[in-house]
Amino acid sequence: MGWIPVTKAAGTAGNAEGNTKLNAFDNALLAAGIGNINLVRISSILPPGVDLVPLPRIKPGAIVPTAYAAQTSEVPGEVIAAAVGWARPGDAGKNGVIMEFHDKATREEAERMIVQMLEEAFKVRGEHIREMGVFAAEHRVERTGCAVAAVTLLAPDDLG
Amino acid sequence: MGWIPVTKAAGTAGNAEGNTKLNAFDNALLAAGIGNINLVRISSILPPGVDLVPLPRIKPGAIVPTAYAAQTSEVPGEVIAAAVGWARPGDAGKNGVIMEFHDKATREEAERMIVQMLEEAFKVRGEHIREMGVFAAEHRVERTGCAVAAVTLLAPDDLG
Amino acid sequence: MGWIPVTKAAGTAGNAEGNTKLNAFDNALLAAGIGNINLVRISSILPPGVDLVPLPRIKPGAIVPTAYAAQTSEVPGEVIAAAVGWARPGDAGKNGVIMEFHDKATREEAERMIVQMLEEAFKVRGEHIREMGVFAAEHRVERTGCAVAAVTLLAPDDLG
Repeated sequence: MGWIPVTKAAGTAGNAEGNTKLNAFDNALLAAGIGNINLVRISSILPPGVDLVPLPRIKPGAIVPTAYAAQTSEVPGEVIAAAVGWARPGDAGKNGVIMEFHDKATREEAERMIVQMLEEAFKVRGEHIREMGVFAAEHRVERTGCAVAAVTLLAPDDLG
Repeated sequence: MGWIPVTKAAGTAGNAEGNTKLNAFDNALLAAGIGNINLVRISSILPPGVDLVPLPRIKPGAIVPTAYAAQTSEVPGEVIAAAVGWARPGDAGKNGVIMEFHDKATREEAERMIVQMLEEAFKVRGEHIREMGVFAAEHRVERTGCAVAAVTLLAPDDLG
Repeated sequence: MGWIPVTKAAGTAGNAEGNTKLNAFDNALLAAGIGNINLVRISSILPPGVDLVPLPRIKPGAIVPTAYAAQTSEVPGEVIAAAVGWARPGDAGKNGVIMEFHDKATREEAERMIVQMLEEAFKVRGEHIREMGVFAAEHRVERTGCAVAAVTLLAPDDLG
């Protein structure tokens, strides 16, 4: 398929206020460093053999398969969080798994849920987690706020 | 576009319990045989000329355009269902249509809705259905359950 | 990535009734001229350098990255609207932004929200809007109605 080859994956998270829910989401994506690319939601597998890297510079407008979570709220004072995490087994020929979480919650609660979900995902697959990465953002809403977390899957052409 | 050429389509369905809603979804995808690939949601056309095949082995992590329905519930005893169906006209140069349904419902109800929706979709297009396939799963919730149904669009590179 | 090169973008909108919510959505997409293609939702950037064109003929079944908004309602008499808009800065090397809106609202309200959201998106990016396009549809529900609006991103292979 055209989206092959995905060779890298990078996680990130961010949070922000905005004047509308969609602007808060847009601003949170900008805070996370992925506000000028096109996210295409995937559910949610880490392909075998990809390199996990710090978020690189991605070409503006690139269309990027991404597992992401977002929580938006218009309740002042509310604490919201979004988290994503990847885990993979020792066998480099096998895929990993990505999990997402978003809710009225703290960052710690979100991170804990990600780990728990990844552990169940590996248990049902009969695999053991060898590596794991979790990315989370928490936001205390002022007026209209958003927290996002994402794992992007990147091809060489997306960079630069 | 990069996703050309999609050459095959395959339907499937599955259901499962999990410790969280997302794990139940993940487990239902595994039960359906598509738990280790990346689904990208499409709305929802069967391209002309594709071969309808039994679900093949798909490369782990492949990014696969998929029309899917999912129903998750945390109400013990509740019966939930998800269904998808494709239909296509006699003219092989014309596209078919895919419809999705998910609800508190039985498998039979879900299947009936799919057929009704496909019939309307063909009526408004001025076409007659020559072939149809429906895939459905029903689940009686124990604690946290999910039913999923999907039609995947596959390129040669996705297989193997 | 496989989806490169997107070279054109085209906006459209439509509205319709249907016997189910999904058929109303399908019918609204047909009214908008994008009912026989596969929409893949993106969030929501106009790549640099694309040509903004009137909606061309797109190959049936093509898998098209699309920013879209849809509002469906089963409340007779209710007025619903969906709108999308793109804006871009003077510097052709920089990306533009796409915003979506859908609600119980009139077409004028939806269009106003799009402009407001685009203005905020440019303000936070430190850019000025040089060009803008807004596409909106309004629908007064008879029984089950839908309004959709979309900006499609097109590659040369998608046309024809």
